[in-house]
Amino acid sequence: MFEDILKNVQEKTPLVHCITNYVTVNDVANILLACGGSPIMADDEKDAVEITAICDALVINIGTLNERTIATMLKTGKRANELSHPAVLDPVGAGASSLRTDTTFKLLQEVQFAVIRGNISEIKTVAKGSGTTKGVDADERDAVTEKNLDEVISFAKELSGKTNSIIVITGAIDIVTDSNKVYLIRNGHEMMSKISGTGCMLTAVIAAYCAANPENHLDAAAAAVCAMGLAGEIAYDKLVKADGGTSSYRTYLIDAMSKLNEKDFEGGAKIEIR
Amino acid sequence: MFEDILKNVQEKTPLVHCITNYVTVNDVANILLACGGSPIMADDEKDAVEITAICDALVINIGTLNERTIATMLKTGKRANELSHPAVLDPVGAGASSLRTDTTFKLLQEVQFAVIRGNISEIKTVAKGSGTTKGVDADERDAVTEKNLDEVISFAKELSGKTNSIIVITGAIDIVTDSNKVYLIRNGHEMMSKISGTGCMLTAVIAAYCAANPENHLDAAAAAVCAMGLAGEIAYDKLVKADGGTSSYRTYLIDAMSKLNEKDFEGGAKIEIR
Amino acid sequence: MFEDILKNVQEKTPLVHCITNYVTVNDVANILLACGGSPIMADDEKDAVEITAICDALVINIGTLNERTIATMLKTGKRANELSHPAVLDPVGAGASSLRTDTTFKLLQEVQFAVIRGNISEIKTVAKGSGTTKGVDADERDAVTEKNLDEVISFAKELSGKTNSIIVITGAIDIVTDSNKVYLIRNGHEMMSKISGTGCMLTAVIAAYCAANPENHLDAAAAAVCAMGLAGEIAYDKLVKADGGTSSYRTYLIDAMSKLNEKDFEGGAKIEIR
Repeated sequence: MFEDILKNVQEKTPLVHCITNYVTVNDVANILLACGGSPIMADDEKDAVEITAICDALVINIGTLNERTIATMLKTGKRANELSHPAVLDPVGAGASSLRTDTTFKLLQEVQFAVIRGNISEIKTVAKGSGTTKGVDADERDAVTEKNLDEVISFAKELSGKTNSIIVITGAIDIVTDSNKVYLIRNGHEMMSKISGTGCMLTAVIAAYCAANPENHLDAAAAAVCAMGLAGEIAYDKLVKADGGTSSYRTYLIDAMSKLNEKDFEGGAKIEIR
Repeated sequence: MFEDILKNVQEKTPLVHCITNYVTVNDVANILLACGGSPIMADDEKDAVEITAICDALVINIGTLNERTIATMLKTGKRANELSHPAVLDPVGAGASSLRTDTTFKLLQEVQFAVIRGNISEIKTVAKGSGTTKGVDADERDAVTEKNLDEVISFAKELSGKTNSIIVITGAIDIVTDSNKVYLIRNGHEMMSKISGTGCMLTAVIAAYCAANPENHLDAAAAAVCAMGLAGEIAYDKLVKADGGTSSYRTYLIDAMSKLNEKDFEGGAKIEIR
Repeated sequence: MFEDILKNVQEKTPLVHCITNYVTVNDVANILLACGGSPIMADDEKDAVEITAICDALVINIGTLNERTIATMLKTGKRANELSHPAVLDPVGAGASSLRTDTTFKLLQEVQFAVIRGNISEIKTVAKGSGTTKGVDADERDAVTEKNLDEVISFAKELSGKTNSIIVITGAIDIVTDSNKVYLIRNGHEMMSKISGTGCMLTAVIAAYCAANPENHLDAAAAAVCAMGLAGEIAYDKLVKADGGTSSYRTYLIDAMSKLNEKDFEGGAKIEIR
């Protein structure tokens, strides 16, 4: 169902401007290339506001934020809005410190995001102004299960209405929703949580997919989440054969994204629409 | 002998806050996950002091330091002390520039470190206030050999007494000591010096091991050094079979850490206690 | 023809100081080790000016530049000049923003570069003060082809005369020239454009090669470009056998550089001198 979306990314090679943390920035750059996009990183205000104008989308990822880059995020986000470029927010660790939480709120006030992606703890912080985020991983108490799924879906739809952003909550079950329609995606593999950066990478892939599919950001975001999950599954199959560990898994994950095609979607997508 | 230490890390998943250089930060994040811990990076004063409070240990690594991050290191180190979190110092390149040497001294004055890890040149700088550090690698003239080993051990023990920190000197022979008991570890492989970041990675693993074993930091640090050395040996075996180069070696090293178990310790640890 | 140049790098282990972007910094560090050099990164003014004095070469790469690091680049570049260390400029994204273009011009005014390496769009910006750079990749309209090759060579030679720097323009055909003699190098593989950092890595390798071959920077730069191209070809052969993707390709590229020897040059170098 996402064949055209994939094709658009590969044909248009969207240029994605990332203001992102220095922990996973290299993975973000390489997965953008792997998925059919092209990355550019710029985080100085004087540079970034201009750079974003030659790009097709903007990623704001608040991991390793500082006062200088926060100012850049705000100005560049506004500029992306003026240019109607999709802006995607990754509120890494929102809830874990006041600076991260406050910055998330400020960004939400001043920038209109096309998509907000986080784990359930981060998204709860986005919604409530308080959270129980344990570092950059979701708190176990927040875990999305089949049992509380309906509740979380209602929460995500409501938040989407409030923010006018597509909400993406990733975990064992991924939720992609606007205020009306929700995609539940059950692709992926638990090994993805054993390497740094899968969340950051996915956020950037969402931005590339949205940039190449301006008419339908919801489907684009869902396709990106599904693509990342499929890549995670393909990588795991390879890992088992190679008897490798976590670092090999990271390599295979980006490899899989670089080779992903329509048939992978047809054969492997585990998507439910509600 | 280190089975319980390893088990504690894997069961407790210690969250390690790293203020570390941007060269090897991704490797540090991934080896922390691989060894059973969890990483979070935050280097802005407003963020880091709060983030460290939700963590179990702190790494201060002075590679790519700057005025902003130095201030953060000092404040965050003090906060970690207040919270009784083990703080581990990696004085990357101490002796190579006044800023690095002075920052090391300032950190030692204001923060109580559980462990200080460096190559012999860096540790000599820590001790003497002057060094012959050649960049970030140890100076050949400083090399620890079987011949000068007793002398270096005495020096390390004395430094441990003076700083009240466990001293870890890594090289062909690794030394882990407090003022009384010394572990000599002869694991590892020379290929480890052909990739960037093995020292930084080890420092972070030490922090995870100490956090999960609060009663016995000396054994925890020795176990971490041994674990890294074993991973280096396992990685080399794999490299030979795969006919790979240095970048494959890095992958195999982190892979090996992610799969390390009690049996590897039993069969491979080369530890002498003095 | 480059056997001695390669040997000099491996025997002298040149220490290369890099002020470089945080996206590809880890790849830069690892390729420096792989090619026989040694990396050190320092970007704070107080640190970098001193660090550069213990090094053998300096790389200035303006990707992810900011006001703090620009000041460091200028001061450190001058210091490298005083010490007669080869300084190599990588004007990443020059032409894509005023800050990048202006910084490039300021660096060219205040620092004498041994080598300037970029894609054709970046080098055109260096020459003309205006460009059509699309992000960090060369603009398609600027592409160097067999058809416009003579024209581009004339342009590069003239720019070399004007800047008194060796000019390296990389793309499908690589051009390495001073104002008299030009090397055309047809090694490499298009997969190199599918991973982040091949340009940054090459710039660092050029610096290592020049540092170890002070008498002949032109040949050293040409040898470095050829080495990178050969590594790219060897990596591609390995990739096909392993059925891997882009991330494996990056691993194989650095692997190949770490194992490159005289025979690879003899058998594979595709060099034309004009």
